Amino acid sequence: MTEPTALQPEPPAPKPEDERLLEEAIARGSAPDCLAWLESASHLDAVHALAALGAEERASLLALIPPEHAAEVLELLPESQAIEAVQDLHAPIAAEILAEMASDARADLVQSLDDDDAHAVLAELETEIAHDIRTLVAHDEESAGGMMVTEFVAFRDDMTIRDALADMAENAEKYADYNVQYTYVTDAIGRLRGVLPIRRLLFAKRSSPIGDVMIADPVSVPATMEFDDLRRTFMEHPYIGLPVVSSDGVLLGVVEQEDMAHAAVEEADDLYRQSQGIVGGEELRSMPLLTRSRRRLAWLSANIVLNIIAASVIAMHQDTLEAVIALAVFLPIISDMSGCSGNQAVAVTMRELTLGVTRPRDGLRVLLKEASVGLINGIALGVLIGAVAYLWKGNIALGGVVGVALALNTLVAVCIGGLVPLLLKAFKTDPALASGPILTTITDMCGFLIVLSLASAAMGYLS
Amino acid sequence: MTEPTALQPEPPAPKPEDERLLEEAIARGSAPDCLAWLESASHLDAVHALAALGAEERASLLALIPPEHAAEVLELLPESQAIEAVQDLHAPIAAEILAEMASDARADLVQSLDDDDAHAVLAELETEIAHDIRTLVAHDEESAGGMMVTEFVAFRDDMTIRDALADMAENAEKYADYNVQYTYVTDAIGRLRGVLPIRRLLFAKRSSPIGDVMIADPVSVPATMEFDDLRRTFMEHPYIGLPVVSSDGVLLGVVEQEDMAHAAVEEADDLYRQSQGIVGGEELRSMPLLTRSRRRLAWLSANIVLNIIAASVIAMHQDTLEAVIALAVFLPIISDMSGCSGNQAVAVTMRELTLGVTRPRDGLRVLLKEASVGLINGIALGVLIGAVAYLWKGNIALGGVVGVALALNTLVAVCIGGLVPLLLKAFKTDPALASGPILTTITDMCGFLIVLSLASAAMGYLS
Repeated sequence: MTEPTALQPEPPAPKPEDERLLEEAIARGSAPDCLAWLESASHLDAVHALAALGAEERASLLALIPPEHAAEVLELLPESQAIEAVQDLHAPIAAEILAEMASDARADLVQSLDDDDAHAVLAELETEIAHDIRTLVAHDEESAGGMMVTEFVAFRDDMTIRDALADMAENAEKYADYNVQYTYVTDAIGRLRGVLPIRRLLFAKRSSPIGDVMIADPVSVPATMEFDDLRRTFMEHPYIGLPVVSSDGVLLGVVEQEDMAHAAVEEADDLYRQSQGIVGGEELRSMPLLTRSRRRLAWLSANIVLNIIAASVIAMHQDTLEAVIALAVFLPIISDMSGCSGNQAVAVTMRELTLGVTRPRDGLRVLLKEASVGLINGIALGVLIGAVAYLWKGNIALGGVVGVALALNTLVAVCIGGLVPLLLKAFKTDPALASGPILTTITDMCGFLIVLSLASAAMGYLS
Repeated sequence: MTEPTALQPEPPAPKPEDERLLEEAIARGSAPDCLAWLESASHLDAVHALAALGAEERASLLALIPPEHAAEVLELLPESQAIEAVQDLHAPIAAEILAEMASDARADLVQSLDDDDAHAVLAELETEIAHDIRTLVAHDEESAGGMMVTEFVAFRDDMTIRDALADMAENAEKYADYNVQYTYVTDAIGRLRGVLPIRRLLFAKRSSPIGDVMIADPVSVPATMEFDDLRRTFMEHPYIGLPVVSSDGVLLGVVEQEDMAHAAVEEADDLYRQSQGIVGGEELRSMPLLTRSRRRLAWLSANIVLNIIAASVIAMHQDTLEAVIALAVFLPIISDMSGCSGNQAVAVTMRELTLGVTRPRDGLRVLLKEASVGLINGIALGVLIGAVAYLWKGNIALGGVVGVALALNTLVAVCIGGLVPLLLKAFKTDPALASGPILTTITDMCGFLIVLSLASAAMGYLS
């Protein structure tokens, strides 16, 4: 945590051509000009300009400026660009920059590198830092051990408050970058014994042993605890950080609540991204064309197969369609509207799952709640589309067929939409990715079948 | 911030019937049984059980248990249920519970009440608390003043460090609930003069005046600062909290970084929800049927009108369709696939807007980047669907028409999908809500037009 500095008036927003000044400074190889540009730009403008640079320019910039500034630049970049940039740097330079980063961000980056690059960088780092990275990387990224920081302040339980204060004063510079609201207390072999809030230090007698002042047996989490359990633990114990211990109780690091918030944002982002068909993680337009194209196509080709299966229902009823060609106008409307209604129900279930107010076994309740909405909305939409069909062709039977079909299929769509995420969750599959395609395939098939069957039953009145 | 307590082993997860124990305890009117249930349940189980109660049961529970516990229950509930519960309570009981809540959560709740309910509750509250709520509510909810908490520790600049420590010791109980990492320093009439990190208190000479030890002229934000600017300020000054001042510099409260993280989660949630057609805020299935139905229908009826407009393109080419009925099978496929491709591009633009790597004026870059992906993916999907059409009917012209149409329309869809959010943003409209419907309407019309025009041009080879 850096201390607040004097309030600086906001510099005027750089104009588009200003970004070229940064590019030119990089091309000239002028570190002072690059630094001056970065310091004068607002956070938002810096992000935009850095992301707009070519991959090589970004690497040149990082190699040019002092490592502590390069580390700041790396933290401004979207993750995918940061990884690419580190990969493009010579290992000794990358190592100098990594040495300036926070332990968890550093380990995440190294973990994302190719094996060769990771080994090259680790070989260049100080033994202590390399060991620290190896320890963090050894834990699953989604576990307490993988999310913790190793920057924490710990005292032995046989020290006195005076010793602790002296240590803090002596190491003030080192600790300045730590998020020190709590300090931790261990025994002689490093096992967690207690926590000591900074505020307690203020009021305790200087000669007391720390063991007497600390809060004993604090809440701690094992390094292997998975993310969902970790989040639950934070909900029940809303502290700023939780100590992470090894299987034999040795204090390894601290997971910060801030990281829970970041993980929640990431989860919500993933949900949106996957529901829109962006799979395999974030896509930025600075990524290589073929990577972007291939990843999008993977999703699209699964979808086109499902679409062809659904449309085969139409192919099987071609004679009905031939007799009443007006139906062809309504097929895409029924398909699209059922998809819309169903997706609303998917979104509500996804939200209720996140909040924890619905669980996979609550299917019956979801079904009843959705069926009643589906009935009302189905009738409303059915009457509307039926009226349009009647007014267009002056045929009441056409209006009836189209209207009843949309009403029924809306009911089907919201019920399936509400249930599909629960079923996927029950089968331990990620509902964000698969709910949409499963929903639209079923509702398309069902919608086409209803409208074409009704039409062939009412054929005498339609033509 | 409460202190860590002894580590408690996780109780076994209550089974579904356990939720009935809570309902029965409420029905019996037994506060001790309700409290015992709540304390034994895990956080997740409590949320699920509370959300599953009827609205009246929830209100009974809140009235039954002591106000400080009721305040905790209110904070567990999804916002919409918390508001409903407060509305269902007698004003004096609601006031007792609100008095136990944090200032910002309390003000948000009162702000969401009907005017009559809000006045009734305010009349029952202590003057000081009611005044505090009125002050917070007077600010825009999305501004620094609306988001701040009024729980902070401030000292006059002419006090000594010894005075400050004495005040902290004296008020230790009151401050225990505050997030005290920084204290604030004001002049005699309350204007912000500096900040004093708790850590500085540790090492300063007891007789120094606070004014000499504090960090002078700290970063502060005006109460009127809007959310986007506030977030930018936090990005540039990543402190745990920023002091909020009135137009004449008087310290009013503190906005916490934690609230920025919550707001970021909410924004991502909104994006997903709105892209799926859930408008007007969160929907939970515990809400009244007609509210849920009406809100969903508002979105659906706008969509059905757009759908009818798009389908009118088919109606105008009915003769072509009549001559080549097989085309009717491919119309919904082209509509759906173009929507999928376009939505992927929308999602990438939305993400780049959030990260700040793309801005409304970057349209040309977005267009070029999307066009190249659209070309590759359009050709791949076009070849696929063309082959299916050819294999089905053995007519190469049909394959050609359908394939070329999907290829062209994929190109159109990704370009429009990439640009629409930028245009909406440039016109200060919320892109999350409108991008999808605008995209699918344009790509549907365009897709239907391309396939039917190509077909009528190639009519001689199709039948």
